[in-house]
Amino acid sequence: MAFSERVTRLKSSLIREILAAAQRPEVMSFAGGLPAQEMLPRVEWDALPVNLGQYGTSEGEPELREAIAAQARALGVECDASQVLVTAGSQQALDLAAKLYIDQDTQVLLEGPSYLAALQSFQFFGADCLTVPLTAEGMDIEALRQCLETNKPAFAYLIPTFQNPSGVRYTEACRDQVAALMDEFSVTLIEDEPYRELIFDDAPATPIVSRLKRTSWIYTGTVSKTLLPGLRVGYLIASLDLYPYLLRLKQAADLHTNRIGQWQALQWVGTPRYQAHIQELRNFYRARRDAFQAALVRHFGELADWNQPQGGLFFWLTLRQPIDTRLLLEPALAQDVAFMPGEPFFSDPEGNLGRLRLNFSHVAPERVDEGLSRLASVIKAAQAL
Amino acid sequence: MAFSERVTRLKSSLIREILAAAQRPEVMSFAGGLPAQEMLPRVEWDALPVNLGQYGTSEGEPELREAIAAQARALGVECDASQVLVTAGSQQALDLAAKLYIDQDTQVLLEGPSYLAALQSFQFFGADCLTVPLTAEGMDIEALRQCLETNKPAFAYLIPTFQNPSGVRYTEACRDQVAALMDEFSVTLIEDEPYRELIFDDAPATPIVSRLKRTSWIYTGTVSKTLLPGLRVGYLIASLDLYPYLLRLKQAADLHTNRIGQWQALQWVGTPRYQAHIQELRNFYRARRDAFQAALVRHFGELADWNQPQGGLFFWLTLRQPIDTRLLLEPALAQDVAFMPGEPFFSDPEGNLGRLRLNFSHVAPERVDEGLSRLASVIKAAQAL
Repeated sequence: MAFSERVTRLKSSLIREILAAAQRPEVMSFAGGLPAQEMLPRVEWDALPVNLGQYGTSEGEPELREAIAAQARALGVECDASQVLVTAGSQQALDLAAKLYIDQDTQVLLEGPSYLAALQSFQFFGADCLTVPLTAEGMDIEALRQCLETNKPAFAYLIPTFQNPSGVRYTEACRDQVAALMDEFSVTLIEDEPYRELIFDDAPATPIVSRLKRTSWIYTGTVSKTLLPGLRVGYLIASLDLYPYLLRLKQAADLHTNRIGQWQALQWVGTPRYQAHIQELRNFYRARRDAFQAALVRHFGELADWNQPQGGLFFWLTLRQPIDTRLLLEPALAQDVAFMPGEPFFSDPEGNLGRLRLNFSHVAPERVDEGLSRLASVIKAAQAL
Repeated sequence: MAFSERVTRLKSSLIREILAAAQRPEVMSFAGGLPAQEMLPRVEWDALPVNLGQYGTSEGEPELREAIAAQARALGVECDASQVLVTAGSQQALDLAAKLYIDQDTQVLLEGPSYLAALQSFQFFGADCLTVPLTAEGMDIEALRQCLETNKPAFAYLIPTFQNPSGVRYTEACRDQVAALMDEFSVTLIEDEPYRELIFDDAPATPIVSRLKRTSWIYTGTVSKTLLPGLRVGYLIASLDLYPYLLRLKQAADLHTNRIGQWQALQWVGTPRYQAHIQELRNFYRARRDAFQAALVRHFGELADWNQPQGGLFFWLTLRQPIDTRLLLEPALAQDVAFMPGEPFFSDPEGNLGRLRLNFSHVAPERVDEGLSRLASVIKAAQAL
């Protein structure tokens, strides 16, 4: 079998396998990033125009592109609809960016830790992943400068707002500093913001791309966390120099994004109804976050350290006595508990043992205490070996 | 700007640019492969389950995979649902196959001519495209054997049923011979069948993959030509050795296919209602094909040669006095007529001048005569230069 060279780097997705194992209804899953089932809005389809069954344009539906551009401008991102490319979820934006930039051994810069599926996709295309550590304020700016002084990454991939998996929100000062360094070293910035709207306080978080003065950029978002992930509607907005390439790559990948989902997204994006729904989501998730925090204090107070996230869907725990948390998966699943080991979120898993990502949005609050209790027991048992 | 090496091979899509130019309502477009607008079925959405808004599996919806597998088995393809991967249109299957197989200079084997977007996608990934010519009966078997004796392609990509652009349907004998050669030389077969159901007679066309005894295979199909392309629902069925790789590639590309479109497809695939709709489509397109044939005889009888297609959406004309038909696009559009030049369907465009692909399904019959008359005039004027 003569596969491509890159297939030797094709990893099985741990997330996918855990989610498969966690399908059993008795499993309490802290593993995924699924929106809470009970918060999926009921949507109407009656008014769907029949002509949307026809082929569409690779760019996406014009009205939706307008609405997405308007939303981004309201966040301070200078752009218009001609810079918006509707994608099959924001995951596809990563695939397009990888195709655009990554050859064997191309350097790219990521946060440590970073989004697992981005890391895997970039590595699959052959990237040499440079990692800059995160602090509670965002990227470690000194480490970023040092990295850029000694390397030439094709792009930096950042999730500055409720980062996955760490939950970190970059401070305004950190955002300014990152933008200045991207400009100084002429590094393309890919800013991924799936969790922006899932915010539990009032702190500001203006996109970093809005602070850039010179360098190229791609900003990505999605309706998956605030409307319906099953629509598979995300988007990227790109600086004018990059857009024509990304458009052609989109066309080669799947011609265009499904128009049914695009139409449904258009019924929401930019409307008061969507704002009201998002506000409900925030209240719902904030309450779940608070309950989860309380349960964590009870069961993990002695075991781990963490910061309470102000948005997003995850807690990120650092064990005080580090062990390889991948080895905890099987015993945890035997106790009907699923979680995400932290190691795969680093390009150097072996050098980063002892973190766990716990989703707080999915498991019903009345089961969280039992689930975390079991998970803590599994960890203690492993640490005692 | 440091893009990947492959971006140097990223071509602007001629189809896309023509379709863009052909958006003006006054343009009579013979260029695209769009289903006729008036034949898009009215679909119902009332019963869509709300839980389909949630994330789905990368493989696709279980019931839809079952229905697709059953349909393939009825065609003679031995498979079960575990071999079915639902994709964002069958275009995505080409992207996944390219990722699986193609490094810089990897040989792949295609028909000459072949589907433009496949050719472009494979070349983008760096493929060295070997071309075996088509005859009216299918692939030139002697040329195929010679090609396989002197080369080692990673796969052969064929469209044996109403081939795009040529309209050729491989004979049963040719299908047997191709299958035997794929087995003999251990070449993976990718069989692409978007047009299988758009058939105007009763002749058989059992898939080539059903005739394979040993070698690996991927069979692709779509609902885009018979239901609604805007759903972006296609599929691939793969031999068991390939499936796990394609699944991981799908997950990295966009996590999963949109579930709304999958649900709608499931309301049709394998049902009597779908069969009745497809029968209506066949009657409608057959009548359009006949009217187009008559108009072609009137206006192109002296100019070109062609075979009347027994299925699909296209006529494929060979000019008796070959000229570069790409140069005809601008004068044709000036006359409000669009068509597809034949040269880009060959990996060696310069060596294959003087063909045109004409879609017969889109332009209303009462305008076809005028459109073809204008196109013939444009050709004659260019030939007279």
